[in-house]
Amino acid sequence: MSALSDDRRLHGHLIGQQGSRRALNTPVLVLDLDVLEANIAAMARKAAAAGARLRPHAKTHKSVDIARRQVAAGAFGLCCAKLGEAEALAAGDIGNLHVTSPVVSPPAIARLVALNGRSPGLSVVADHPDNVAALAAAAQPDAPLTVYVDIDPGIRRTGVAGDEAAVALARQIAEAPSLRFGGVQKYCGREQHIEDYAERRAAILAQTEALKGTLTALAQAGLAPPVVTGGGTGTHEIDLELGVFNELQVGSYVFMDDQYAACQLGAAPGQPYGRSLMVDARVVSANHGPLVTLDAGFKAFSTDADPPQVLAGAPDGARFAFMGDEHGALIAPGVGEALRPGEMVTLAVPHCDPTVNLYESYHVVRGDTLVDIWPVSARGRSR
Amino acid sequence: MSALSDDRRLHGHLIGQQGSRRALNTPVLVLDLDVLEANIAAMARKAAAAGARLRPHAKTHKSVDIARRQVAAGAFGLCCAKLGEAEALAAGDIGNLHVTSPVVSPPAIARLVALNGRSPGLSVVADHPDNVAALAAAAQPDAPLTVYVDIDPGIRRTGVAGDEAAVALARQIAEAPSLRFGGVQKYCGREQHIEDYAERRAAILAQTEALKGTLTALAQAGLAPPVVTGGGTGTHEIDLELGVFNELQVGSYVFMDDQYAACQLGAAPGQPYGRSLMVDARVVSANHGPLVTLDAGFKAFSTDADPPQVLAGAPDGARFAFMGDEHGALIAPGVGEALRPGEMVTLAVPHCDPTVNLYESYHVVRGDTLVDIWPVSARGRSR
Repeated sequence: MSALSDDRRLHGHLIGQQGSRRALNTPVLVLDLDVLEANIAAMARKAAAAGARLRPHAKTHKSVDIARRQVAAGAFGLCCAKLGEAEALAAGDIGNLHVTSPVVSPPAIARLVALNGRSPGLSVVADHPDNVAALAAAAQPDAPLTVYVDIDPGIRRTGVAGDEAAVALARQIAEAPSLRFGGVQKYCGREQHIEDYAERRAAILAQTEALKGTLTALAQAGLAPPVVTGGGTGTHEIDLELGVFNELQVGSYVFMDDQYAACQLGAAPGQPYGRSLMVDARVVSANHGPLVTLDAGFKAFSTDADPPQVLAGAPDGARFAFMGDEHGALIAPGVGEALRPGEMVTLAVPHCDPTVNLYESYHVVRGDTLVDIWPVSARGRSR
Repeated sequence: MSALSDDRRLHGHLIGQQGSRRALNTPVLVLDLDVLEANIAAMARKAAAAGARLRPHAKTHKSVDIARRQVAAGAFGLCCAKLGEAEALAAGDIGNLHVTSPVVSPPAIARLVALNGRSPGLSVVADHPDNVAALAAAAQPDAPLTVYVDIDPGIRRTGVAGDEAAVALARQIAEAPSLRFGGVQKYCGREQHIEDYAERRAAILAQTEALKGTLTALAQAGLAPPVVTGGGTGTHEIDLELGVFNELQVGSYVFMDDQYAACQLGAAPGQPYGRSLMVDARVVSANHGPLVTLDAGFKAFSTDADPPQVLAGAPDGARFAFMGDEHGALIAPGVGEALRPGEMVTLAVPHCDPTVNLYESYHVVRGDTLVDIWPVSARGRSR
């Protein structure tokens, strides 16, 4: 907790002070609690109305505090991208954790079995018979490990590649005394970010038709999966409408980054979720008319997406450009006259998952007042 | 220290066990201690022979343990990109810290002045008269703060833009009772990575000619700078040959990432430094002939440079491609037959500074044996 203590030591005295957001050291990851709560409530209502189970993805936020709020709003449990994330959430007493990537190495399998002994409702995916054999050998029949078959949506990242392989793997799981067949997972990652709604709908319809075929093949083999898990923020409205998934792994809806802000999420115009996550930065150098330098660079934003949009504090039309690890340029006519060193600018988050992973904590605000500091509990837990 | 404790809890029992590198959970940041020590010694010898002072840049490694080894080999102190890095190194009793970016906001200036009271030899750069005025107002005449004039090498990131501004700022610093004029800094970041040696030499010659003009202007104003600091791994041989800088801020030579491996560093053929830093990852899915999936993605490597080169464990010619936050593809004919889930692959580090920033610790090896676990002391300290 050194890092959290560091942020608490630095900023803890500002909690509850009106307007204290302006006094924070920068760059700082700011979370608008009103918007976060509204997003969590809106998704919970939508899933409940459709009768689907929510298991939001913690890879987005990596936060015990946010997971607790999702569970309090009705989520069944949380998804985790890696075993290390699940260990961090389990340490915060979050249960029904589902690890969405295979766990394959001997040291990791030993950790997984140990976690299964202390975290009720744990599950993991597999996509290879060798891995299922290793899991079966490591787990104990008196504390069986729940394993889902991961189905490749065609991107060849993880997952079995066809119905025959899915049935064979499900059978191998079901027949192992130390394992329990939990269901199937199909995560259509590529489809989530198709910006046009109709195009996205057509793509996910095709994926869902293929999934139906897999489910039929499993049912015919006597292996009808109890849970069909998948989906994401980009496709959840369509997934709920189609009704094939009975559990949704939505993640980014809590924050709404630049990537999702560019997608029309529902059939209706307007966005059902608001932006809750942003980065406050400051001008650190202003010696030129058309640009100033901010104190935020590659270590403040992940660079796998476009550079962040500018939300507040800068002249209209100002754009951000990276200037290395620690700096970015804010470019606009006259910005060097408009902004002096020390002035604060608010930037969007281009892609939330890897950007959050750069920070030790969320600085939680209501309006312009710091109201709490939450650790990014699973930061760096990629193992 | 929760994160370090986590890695120590996970892997501490492996320290000293022969071959234990193969038993580490992945992805893991691996540091070859033999190569690191050779790199530190080689740079120390080179600077000593040229009579220049070394103040290596901690933005590369963010590590108290590596900083201690640099100081033990003769370094005067360490450079830090941000105040937060300097605070982390000062907590490890590293002295003569120089902050290479302006510190401008009121909360940060208060921290800087506090650090100046407990960290002997601290200095900071400035590039704006408002900032110098704020530093002068915050510092105390009985504990003066050492301030360098930062000179813009033409990239407009930080630094004063001309000789006149440099002289005016140096005078303002020298005349403030609570400040001390430390010298000038000119960091030619763009020139460091010019891959061709002759081209790089020509570029840095032009920059050095301009710097000589600035130094003459300062001397004529009675403000001859005691220290002229700058340079980097890419230009240090040329900087030492030209003899205008009397202090070098070399950073990446300790690790040699992909970006610097592509640069011929000296006039002589061959590289004077070896690659000490790498990432071990494992195959997590292998259901296809031409590619397997590794457990390392955007959270294991920064993405501001090209994807990492493949160093070991894979068929010749295999290349890495990102597949999201947690995964990467290893692509080569027949790789899916050659590698099974769980097998280990060693990858290079594309750009060391932001990649190191993703990890809590270095897993330090000699050969294939884990010999220590060092915290990335200043990870995330971008404030």
